[in-house]
This record gives sequence, C-alpha cells and structure tokens, in this order.
Amino acid sequence: MVDVAVICGSASDTAVAEKVFSVLREQGVSYDYQVISAHRDPDRLDDYIRSSPCRVFIAIAGLSAALPGVIASKTARPVIGVPVSGKLMGLDALLSIVQMPKGVPVACVGVDNGENAAHLAIRMLALASE
Amino acid sequence: MVDVAVICGSASDTAVAEKVFSVLREQGVSYDYQVISAHRDPDRLDDYIRSSPCRVFIAIAGLSAALPGVIASKTARPVIGVPVSGKLMGLDALLSIVQMPKGVPVACVGVDNGENAAHLAIRMLALASE
Amino acid sequence: MVDVAVICGSASDTAVAEKVFSVLREQGVSYDYQVISAHRDPDRLDDYIRSSPCRVFIAIAGLSAALPGVIASKTARPVIGVPVSGKLMGLDALLSIVQMPKGVPVACVGVDNGENAAHLAIRMLALASE
Amino acid sequence: MVDVAVICGSASDTAVAEKVFSVLREQGVSYDYQVISAHRDPDRLDDYIRSSPCRVFIAIAGLSAALPGVIASKTARPVIGVPVSGKLMGLDALLSIVQMPKGVPVACVGVDNGENAAHLAIRMLALASE
Amino acid sequence: MVDVAVICGSASDTAVAEKVFSVLREQGVSYDYQVISAHRDPDRLDDYIRSSPCRVFIAIAGLSAALPGVIASKTARPVIGVPVSGKLMGLDALLSIVQMPKGVPVACVGVDNGENAAHLAIRMLALASE
Amino acid sequence: MVDVAVICGSASDTAVAEKVFSVLREQGVSYDYQVISAHRDPDRLDDYIRSSPCRVFIAIAGLSAALPGVIASKTARPVIGVPVSGKLMGLDALLSIVQMPKGVPVACVGVDNGENAAHLAIRMLALASE
Amino acid sequence: MVDVAVICGSASDTAVAEKVFSVLREQGVSYDYQVISAHRDPDRLDDYIRSSPCRVFIAIAGLSAALPGVIASKTARPVIGVPVSGKLMGLDALLSIVQMPKGVPVACVGVDNGENAAHLAIRMLALASE
Amino acid sequence: MVDVAVICGSASDTAVAEKVFSVLREQGVSYDYQVISAHRDPDRLDDYIRSSPCRVFIAIAGLSAALPGVIASKTARPVIGVPVSGKLMGLDALLSIVQMPKGVPVACVGVDNGENAAHLAIRMLALASE
Repeated sequence: MVDVAVICGSASDTAVAEKVFSVLREQGVSYDYQVISAHRDPDRLDDYIRSSPCRVFIAIAGLSAALPGVIASKTARPVIGVPVSGKLMGLDALLSIVQMPKGVPVACVGVDNGENAAHLAIRMLALASE
Repeated sequence: MVDVAVICGSASDTAVAEKVFSVLREQGVSYDYQVISAHRDPDRLDDYIRSSPCRVFIAIAGLSAALPGVIASKTARPVIGVPVSGKLMGLDALLSIVQMPKGVPVACVGVDNGENAAHLAIRMLALASE
Repeated sequence: MVDVAVICGSASDTAVAEKVFSVLREQGVSYDYQVISAHRDPDRLDDYIRSSPCRVFIAIAGLSAALPGVIASKTARPVIGVPVSGKLMGLDALLSIVQMPKGVPVACVGVDNGENAAHLAIRMLALASE
Repeated sequence: MVDVAVICGSASDTAVAEKVFSVLREQGVSYDYQVISAHRDPDRLDDYIRSSPCRVFIAIAGLSAALPGVIASKTARPVIGVPVSGKLMGLDALLSIVQMPKGVPVACVGVDNGENAAHLAIRMLALASE
Repeated sequence: MVDVAVICGSASDTAVAEKVFSVLREQGVSYDYQVISAHRDPDRLDDYIRSSPCRVFIAIAGLSAALPGVIASKTARPVIGVPVSGKLMGLDALLSIVQMPKGVPVACVGVDNGENAAHLAIRMLALASE
Repeated sequence: MVDVAVICGSASDTAVAEKVFSVLREQGVSYDYQVISAHRDPDRLDDYIRSSPCRVFIAIAGLSAALPGVIASKTARPVIGVPVSGKLMGLDALLSIVQMPKGVPVACVGVDNGENAAHLAIRMLALASE
Repeated sequence: MVDVAVICGSASDTAVAEKVFSVLREQGVSYDYQVISAHRDPDRLDDYIRSSPCRVFIAIAGLSAALPGVIASKTARPVIGVPVSGKLMGLDALLSIVQMPKGVPVACVGVDNGENAAHLAIRMLALASE
Repeated sequence: MVDVAVICGSASDTAVAEKVFSVLREQGVSYDYQVISAHRDPDRLDDYIRSSPCRVFIAIAGLSAALPGVIASKTARPVIGVPVSGKLMGLDALLSIVQMPKGVPVACVGVDNGENAAHLAIRMLALASE
C-alpha cells in the first residue's frame, strides 16, 4: 500500500516527477509512479485509478493536460495537478488543470512545481493520521 | 443513422450548439444531440461514443474543456472542438482543445463559433460521398 | 469545532463564498466564516489562523490575492485558494495564488469557482475519517 | 493523384512540415509539398489550390498566418492549419488560424504540432474509404 | 477619383468605419466605402483592389483579420489595418494584422481606432501634395 | 536631405535598425540614423524632429516604447513604430506603440520587424513621387 | 503651493482621478488637478511640469499611457502612474507605465486604482515631514 | 542608520538585487540587504520590518511575489516592488505586485528592473532632504 500515486501524462514530464519524488522521499512518504496518457491510454488509466490503494493522486501533464481532471472524475480521492511548461510557457496546461467544471475539483499548483505538489499531498495525508 | 454527433459538455453550452444545428439543418445534414460531461459522466460518454453510428463528432465545451480530447481518444472518427467563452473569454477552453498531445488530434475552431464547426463537418462528410 | 475555515480577503468576495457554503451545507460539513484582509489586517489573520481548530482552510481573494499564501505560510493544514475575477478577469489573482514558491503549497481552483473549493475540501476531509 | 497537399507559408516552417511527412509516410498516405506564401505569392497559391487533386489541405504558417484561411476560402476541401511558433510563442499564428469568420472553417491543431495535422488528415481520409 | 478606399471585412464592422469617415469628411478627404470579406469574397476583393484609383487603403477587420494583409499583397499602395474587438477583446485581430511577414507591410493602428486610421491616411496623403 | 529618419530609443535596438537600413539601401532610399531616448533625452529629440528634413519617421523602441508616439505628437509626417522584443516578448512595446490615443496616429509593424517598417516607408514615399 | 499634482491624459479618466482626490482630501493633502495629454499637448505639459511647485506627481492614463513616463523624464520628483482600463482591460496602459527604461522610474499602481496612487503619494510625502 | 532596505524573497533573486546596489552605491545612498521569504520566514520578516530604521523599502520577488505587499501592510514607509522573471516571463510577479488592494500601496517597477527601483527610491529620499 502506498500513500501517493504519481502519474505523468508523458515520459517527457519525468523531470517534474523527480521533484515530487525528492520531497516525498525526504519526508518518508511512500509512492507509486506511472506514465499513463489520459488521451492515448484511457483504459489502462481507468484500471490503475480503480485498483490503486493510494490516498492522494498527483497528476503531472503539459499541453491540454486532461490527466488530472480525468483522474478526478474517476476517484473520490483528492487529486493534485501539476502543469508542465512547453511552447506556451505552461499557460495551456495551467488553465486546463485549474479551470475544472463544478463538481470535479483538482488542486492545481504552479507551473513545473513538483515540489509543492508533494508538500500539498503531505499536508493532506497529515489529516488522515490524526 | 446520423452523420454528425453533437455533444455539449454542459447544458449551459446550448446557445453554441444551436448555431451548429442551424447550419447542419440548412444543409440537410442529419445529427444527434447529447449533453454529456466528460468529467461528470465519463461512462455514459464512453457508451455513447462506442455506439454512435455518426461519422463526425462535434464537441462543445468551456473551461478546461476536456470533452473533445476525450472523444478523440476513444474514436477513430474526426473530432471537431468548439471552445465556449466564459470568465477567461474562452482562452482556457481554446488552449485546452487545441493543444492536444501528439497522436490524438482535435480540429479546433474559433471561440463560440458553432457555425464553423458545422461547416467543417460538412466539408469532411463531402469526402465520403465522392 | 469546525471542519473548514472559509476566509475572504474582502467583503466584496461574498458571492464566491456563498458558493462554498452552499456545497458544504449540502454535504453536512461544518464551517466558520471570516472576512480578513491579509494586507489590511495581518495581525487578526495571524490570531485566527493560530486559534482555528479547522482542518482545512479555504481562502477567497481577488487582485494580488496574497491571502491563501499567507495562510499556507502560517499553518500546516491544507489551504485551498479561490481566485476572484475583477478588472483583469481574475488572471491576476489566479497567478498570485497558483505560483507559490517551493515549500508553501496552495491548492488553487478555478476563477470564482467556490463550489470546487468546497468539493476539494470534502475530498480532503474524507481522508481523515477513514 | 495525392491524398494530402501540404503547404508552408515560408521555407522557415520546414521543420514542422517534416513532422507532417513523417506521420503521413508511416501511414502510407501520399502527399505533395509546396512552399507558397499567401501574402507574397497569391497567384501561384490560387493556381495550386485550383489544380490540386488532393482531398485534404494542410497549411503551416507563422506570424499572421493567413495561409490556412486563404486556402479555405478557395476550396471546398477540408483545410487543417498548423500555427508555427516565433517571437510571440505562436500565439499570433494560433489566433489568426483558429478565429476564422463564419462560413470559412479551418481545423486548427496545436502550436508546431505537425504530427496532429497529419493524424487529423488521416481520420478525414478514412471517411472517404468506407 | 478618391483618396482613400475604406474596406470592412464584415457589415458588423460599420461602427468602426463610421469613425474613419467622420475624420476624413472633417478634413475634406474623399473616400470610397466597401464591405468585402477577404475570405468569403476573394475575387470581388481582387477586382476592387486592382481597379481602385485610391492612394491609400484602410482595411477594418475582426477575428483572424486577413483583410489588410491580403490587400497589402495585391497593391503597392500603403495599407492601414484597424483591428476590431470581439470575444477576445480584439487581440486576435490585432496580432493578425500587425504580425505580417517580411515584405508585405501593413500599418496597424489601435483596437477599434478608426479615427487614427483616418489621421494616418491624411499624413500619408500630405506627402503627395508637396 | 533624406527621405527617412530612423531613430532608436536605445543603442541596444541596433540589430532591428540594421534590418531597416538593409531594405532602404537595397531600394536606394536615403536615410539618417540617430539613437535618442524619448525619456532620457527629450530635448535633443525635439530638436531633431523639428530640424529633420525627412518625409517619414521610423521609430524603433522596446519596453514602454514611448518614442514613436512622442515623435508623432511633434511632427505632421507619418511615423512608423517598430516594437522591440525583450523580457515580455515585445508585447509591452507592441501595445504601447499600437494603442495610441485618437488624433496622434502611429503606424505599427510587427515585433522586431524592421524590414516591414522600411517597406511601409517606401510605399508612403512612392505617393510623393507620382 | 500644493503637495501633489494630479494629471489625467484625457477627460475620460476623471472617474479614476476622483478616487485620488477623495483619499487626498480625507488626509488633508493639497493637490492641483489638470487634464493634459502627453501626445496632444506636449508643450503645455512641459510648462506645467516645470512650473509646478508640487512634490509628487500622479499621472493617470489609458491606452499607450505615455503620460507618467514623459513626466518622469522632465522632473526629478517621484512620479506615480495609474493605468486606466479600456478595450484591453488596461493591460496596454499597465505595461506601458510599468516597463520604463532604466534611469526614468515610474511607480506603477494597479489598474484604475486611484486610491492607491494617493496612499503611495502620502507615504512619500511623510518622508519630507520628518 | 540606512536609507534603503533591500529585501529579496529568495537567494535566486540576487542578480536583480545587484542592479539595485549598483545604482544606490553610485549615488552614495546607504542600504541594508536581506534575503527573507514572506512565505517561508514571516516572523523574521516582521521583526526586520519593525526594527529597520530605513526610510524606503525595496522588495524583490518572483512567482506569486507576496513580499512587497506584506511589507507594505506592516510599515508606513513607501515600498517599491520589483517583479522577477521566471517561467511565466515575470507576468505572475508583475500582476501580484501591482494589483494591490486599496489602502496598501506598492510602487511597482518593470520586470527585473532593479535599476529603476533604486532610481525611484532616490527620488523619494530627495523629498526628505529639502
């Protein structure tokens, strides 16, 4: 059993994921890591979300960045989204992640800010251990 | 059997959908209309995409606007996305729809421009009737 | 004892706060509500943060929107920030809230999207009740 | 006879065109390639559009990027536009291509995303072979 | 024979054209007025440009605003472009008009600023009467 | 006597000025070149504008780019402004140059597009030689 | 003798100026008020700046908003600039005012935020009375 | 006793601080320099603000850039804010610093423009020495 599931939408997002791992490891938080595209591999994503025992999801994605929202629509767990910068400086991913429709919340952190995704997850997990 | 499936992400996008219908009707193109949120009703969306006999999808969505991309990831048909304006003038939906990752194409038209979505669908359908 | 502390930076943000209350009430989640400006009343804000028994903070603010970040710097609880639209469509508040420095995480939701702040808080609180 | 006509507005857009070719070749789709500026060589563009036997146009352009729209105004075939990044990150070309007036539709894909232009063309061509 | 040809891309741009007329009339400058879409009526536009005896063109357009650039590509006369505001505040038209490729210059004025288009034309015409 | 006066707001804009010179020289158009800051050397700018025998001004400036507008307020000649890119991609200079108040027109060309400033000046000068 | 000179670039900026007056009056700070366009009336502006006995300037302007910068280039007094919103939400004026070249500083406050211009002036004046 | 307190939000802002020092030194203005994060070290910041004998604060910060506003809320001295560029070109910091709520003014200068922060401080200090 792990505390956090970290999912990247593309293997090119690995550098941001490393920032997440670094903080989680430092704080002794267990995690599982997957690269699954919401658009290119929706069925594997579904399976993973449904079977994951994690308590918090961290989804890292660039461009149209549907990943965090899709995860949030299939789990009742909190989902943290990290927009990844690219040709449009990450503004595309940032707006896609933060402007979710009512009822399907994603907790967005700053562009490429994997560290804060981890710190936010740790604050959430602390609620569970009281 | 219909030529075009028109799907709105929210009932509040109806005004843009009406623009699509108006052009399609004028040109005698058959269509089916659904309101299904990619985020709030993913399973119904899946069923609809898989069972639809349509040849072209038109997906209308605001905010993080995942709908067109999710459809494109589950069909081999062409998918046209229409960004709907809101608090950020539709820039959020526009970037979400147009900045799709490689391999999952969406044909984006202008903000609230339902007419052009219909015209584009008609051009695509004309390829099939040659 | 309350589950959620809802803080507005200005009395003019009340309409967004009402959206938060509406969802929290519907779900039976207890909350306390305050209007405290991070800039104009920093000492009262400090006192409130330190004495609040809440488990999650929701901070609603427009313009330079320092409120969520200041709260996050003074509590170890999760803090959710809601950017409020104004002359620049809420882009100013959105960037201020989401682009936090490393180590002080804020969970940003969409512009004026009080509902999702509440839904996100509820997902976090559910972690505590397992 | 070719399936797709790929037109760049400038020789400097070649890198994006190569992405288009790579996907088309992989899928065995025939294409013709031209560099014709809508602004600097309008008559040659006219001649090419009128005489081309292709079924889908892909137009690649940066800056004010009139190319896709001009083509769409002179053919009844579907036209796919690819905005090319430059000093303004491609936002200029993106808005020019996507914000077409009613009645002259262009299918816009992401900034520099030649691959998706090819994938979209292939989905359109599949309609013709049913 | 007229000094200035004023062309709107759409009948909906008339309010901006009125501002142009008002300044030209006040200064006793003769003009001809046409509504011709670069995208929807390219042949009529061609004919008009080629047969117009005017010395300066003023082109008024919104959205992807190809009109000024198309005119500049077909005449050696100076062309002034006026971006018209719409759902994206005129930023789309502004970037389309100002970011022309090398060799096909358009003189862009401010969003909806028909007055300055007229004033600029008058400064140009004064060169001819020295 | 020269046809065109080219003025840079700062010595760091020289690369853009070189593009202007290159086109003017190629077309045999005479010019004078000065580096004068509108903000740091307003009196020298005044003197230069008043004494210059040129028929068209080209003003090149970055950042808040007041230079073209200040020149336009002190001459009745046409003034062409070239926005220079910097930390904000030239968007600051572009908006400063193009959004002039009514009555003081500046002809804005694209970011760093010195070539088009020269081409536009040549079109204006041709009016005088008819 | 007055403490603050308040200058608007256009009579249409009066509503923002009223916010300045209201705070200054409340605090008993004397001021003089003028409407002078930097672009349309540069000589009167020069005269006013040179003859004003004030200790702080507040300049209110929209669009390309050269006023604060021009004043800062002609006085050694502190100059506060207030960007006024318009078709581009005040982003044009904001960037013009804040992105001044090195050596000619302007103190920029928020869009339409006349109150803060007054409060800032009062903080500056307090330095003089110690 | 020093005239100016220069505070950076992060050690990574040092390059901008050096520009401030260089101008202050050149003009013989004394200063004190600190690196204190508003978010990560609020109590040390409080102590420093309260005990500093300086007459003007210069606060340098990137990202959500709360530092200048927090200082302005805890001192009656003038506060100058310098936005530092990063992944979003400094637009995040610029908007955070300039869009302060009414009553808590910050004097914002251009992105990374440490020189102008120093020049502005010098203009303010001159008021005190008359």
